[in-house]
Amino acid sequence: MSSAATRTTGRDQFWSVTEHLEDILATVRPLEPIELQLLDAQGCVLVEDVTVPLSLPPFDNSSMDGYAVRVADVAGASEEYPAVLTVIGDVAAGAAEQPQVGPGEAARIMTGAPLPPGAETVVPVEWTDGGLGEGPVSGMRARSASPEDATGQVAVHRPAEARAHVRAKGSDVKAGERALAAGTVLGPPQLALLAAIGRATVRVRPRPRVVVLSTGSELIPPGEPLGTGQIYDSNSFALTAAARDAGAIAYRVGAVADDAETLRSTIEDQLVRADLMVTTGGVSVGAYDVVKEALESVGDEDEEGAGIEFRKLAMQPGKPQGFGTIGPDHTPLLALPGNPVSSYVSFELFVRPAIRTLMGLEDVHRPTTTATLQVSKALTSPAGRRQFLRGTYADGEVTPVGGAGSHLIAALAHADALIVIPEDVESVEPGTEVEVVLLG
Amino acid sequence: MSSAATRTTGRDQFWSVTEHLEDILATVRPLEPIELQLLDAQGCVLVEDVTVPLSLPPFDNSSMDGYAVRVADVAGASEEYPAVLTVIGDVAAGAAEQPQVGPGEAARIMTGAPLPPGAETVVPVEWTDGGLGEGPVSGMRARSASPEDATGQVAVHRPAEARAHVRAKGSDVKAGERALAAGTVLGPPQLALLAAIGRATVRVRPRPRVVVLSTGSELIPPGEPLGTGQIYDSNSFALTAAARDAGAIAYRVGAVADDAETLRSTIEDQLVRADLMVTTGGVSVGAYDVVKEALESVGDEDEEGAGIEFRKLAMQPGKPQGFGTIGPDHTPLLALPGNPVSSYVSFELFVRPAIRTLMGLEDVHRPTTTATLQVSKALTSPAGRRQFLRGTYADGEVTPVGGAGSHLIAALAHADALIVIPEDVESVEPGTEVEVVLLG
Repeated sequence: MSSAATRTTGRDQFWSVTEHLEDILATVRPLEPIELQLLDAQGCVLVEDVTVPLSLPPFDNSSMDGYAVRVADVAGASEEYPAVLTVIGDVAAGAAEQPQVGPGEAARIMTGAPLPPGAETVVPVEWTDGGLGEGPVSGMRARSASPEDATGQVAVHRPAEARAHVRAKGSDVKAGERALAAGTVLGPPQLALLAAIGRATVRVRPRPRVVVLSTGSELIPPGEPLGTGQIYDSNSFALTAAARDAGAIAYRVGAVADDAETLRSTIEDQLVRADLMVTTGGVSVGAYDVVKEALESVGDEDEEGAGIEFRKLAMQPGKPQGFGTIGPDHTPLLALPGNPVSSYVSFELFVRPAIRTLMGLEDVHRPTTTATLQVSKALTSPAGRRQFLRGTYADGEVTPVGGAGSHLIAALAHADALIVIPEDVESVEPGTEVEVVLLG
Repeated sequence: MSSAATRTTGRDQFWSVTEHLEDILATVRPLEPIELQLLDAQGCVLVEDVTVPLSLPPFDNSSMDGYAVRVADVAGASEEYPAVLTVIGDVAAGAAEQPQVGPGEAARIMTGAPLPPGAETVVPVEWTDGGLGEGPVSGMRARSASPEDATGQVAVHRPAEARAHVRAKGSDVKAGERALAAGTVLGPPQLALLAAIGRATVRVRPRPRVVVLSTGSELIPPGEPLGTGQIYDSNSFALTAAARDAGAIAYRVGAVADDAETLRSTIEDQLVRADLMVTTGGVSVGAYDVVKEALESVGDEDEEGAGIEFRKLAMQPGKPQGFGTIGPDHTPLLALPGNPVSSYVSFELFVRPAIRTLMGLEDVHRPTTTATLQVSKALTSPAGRRQFLRGTYADGEVTPVGGAGSHLIAALAHADALIVIPEDVESVEPGTEVEVVLLG
């Protein structure tokens, strides 16, 4: 709320979408990092450069199942005139002891096993008779079934250059190199690298805990019978799911009735598990707009200018919005309007970037593109408002679904994009190039 | 495994990537549907058409905070010559009782509240003096602070047409219409619609439970000291994370040592929580390839042709692969090679589509595109193998990272795409258009 003091924030002053978003992003700070187990850090942002403590591979090892031999012993070998070597034992992956390979000798070696001392190269088992004395084989017999194959003789049918089929120590990464840079988002391959260099835990920004609560005495949980004037609570489900999609750990609080004291105490209760709070409803100009009533007067004692501020945005849907910080930890709170489409669009525009900022992500916004508007007649848009219509996008074209009404949930459920009509545009002709937010 | 009987599956017969994938997708079946709470169904596929049981909105209601009036009473009203009406009370959202609005009367009404009997239209509070007798207001005072505002008189400054600012019953969806079609993936807006029409639960295919286990006596958990010939287990972390990314509930089993009996009993233990099993390592031609040893002989008693079959694929990396079904429920099992890059590429090509098929998704594959190959000299590729190189993709260009070695985990961690070199191509010149799999 640092910018609040320098701006006119009177009741009838409209904020632009951009100004409101900038205020939110100037207030919300990335969460403090914590050390997490690898799989708990999936999708999180690394906050430290990770250095490689040991080279990968940690030792020269075989890339094939075969025989570790000396180069001179297999020089000139062919199927007709094989090099016949004495098999001195096995080098299995993970075996602590390795045989010494002398002249005229071969150690049977498995993929990933260390190149034993004395050996200079590896011949794949397919280049040998596997010790069976009957021409080339396609593989080894299991040690458990045929232990004698680790002894006796093997006929090698082809020569091998020095260090053939050998992965050199450090050929992947070397000790001291940087494995991953701070700011990296940890997906499966990055977790693979961290595990491979021996990291069991990693320092990341945690997923934010987001508490979602809807308000309105008319709201009934789905599954229960509706009385006169009642509707089902859908916002708390939609925004909890959307917060998870954005990367958060989201908690859905049931709908709270329009009573300022109940709302205040519910919010106070929930603060303990919130890095961000989101409410829906009760922010407009009615006589029962309890979010506004309950929070407008709630300052943030320790921080000058803090508290929740209610604004009108030059936006449709989503005109009434509240934002600020609350409670001893100055927890950010976004108070969204209650109409289902308004609250969902507001979530996409303001809450999602806030969640991703808390995570420390650089890329906090949905991707946008331009598309050709497919309509049969011109669309109208109110002057001085940035309008967000729901649409379906495909192959460079976007088609509106449903109308502008902020209660049209069915149309929202069939949309995959928001069509942006700028503030200074009041009419958009068919075929116009428009900006589109892709909802993924 | 239905196709196994008609194909030559001898040890030295290579399967194409496409044939192996087709065999997997012909075997894996979508999971049986279950009824889940809305938020447990996020990301799942709906298996039933959902019909709207009640119209949305369920009743005519106000889209503004204002006054519910009769049209004739406000005809010709202006700020200079306002229509002065008697305020007979409030209609709050969710209120069970509504006042009857007679001639010369107005009921204060809140957004979402039912249009009361007798009223024909709504005038927004901004078009009135709010009952304060001092010109236009920007909103109502809170009912709790100023209960007297629900009584007295209000001056209306503008006329309103019939049903202005009224959302008609059924204008979103009507009872009996289809809300969502079977096959819809349930994201936040779809969950919003289900909640709005009163559905507390929904019938979907559940997320598959995927058990991931790595094998190899050389594998040590990250964080513990490495001995001679040992490396850290990374596959079980990478593939557990990748399975989650694909939509599964994934369980990581620690690395299992190269002992067939231990492996068999571990797999048997884990089957109870598996809709799909994934193993890494132990599938090649070595003498300690215990996955092959343990599973090659395990038939599936109830189903002819079932069991795990081990194959060579015309692919690099990822030549050795096992696939089949196991246990009393014929649980699909994919046995991937153990090199980290091989197992990750195999996961992307085979396990991810299997997981998404279990979920009932139509779109089981990663998106692909074509890109211009950015290299300083021609790339080589083995004849008769489909090669998958790691690369970074941006703006229609792809640049390889690291080499072809299947142990290069660091390069994998910096890639975001797989470059596909077809079987019949042995050399690719700089600037060639190549197929690219986008790893998202």
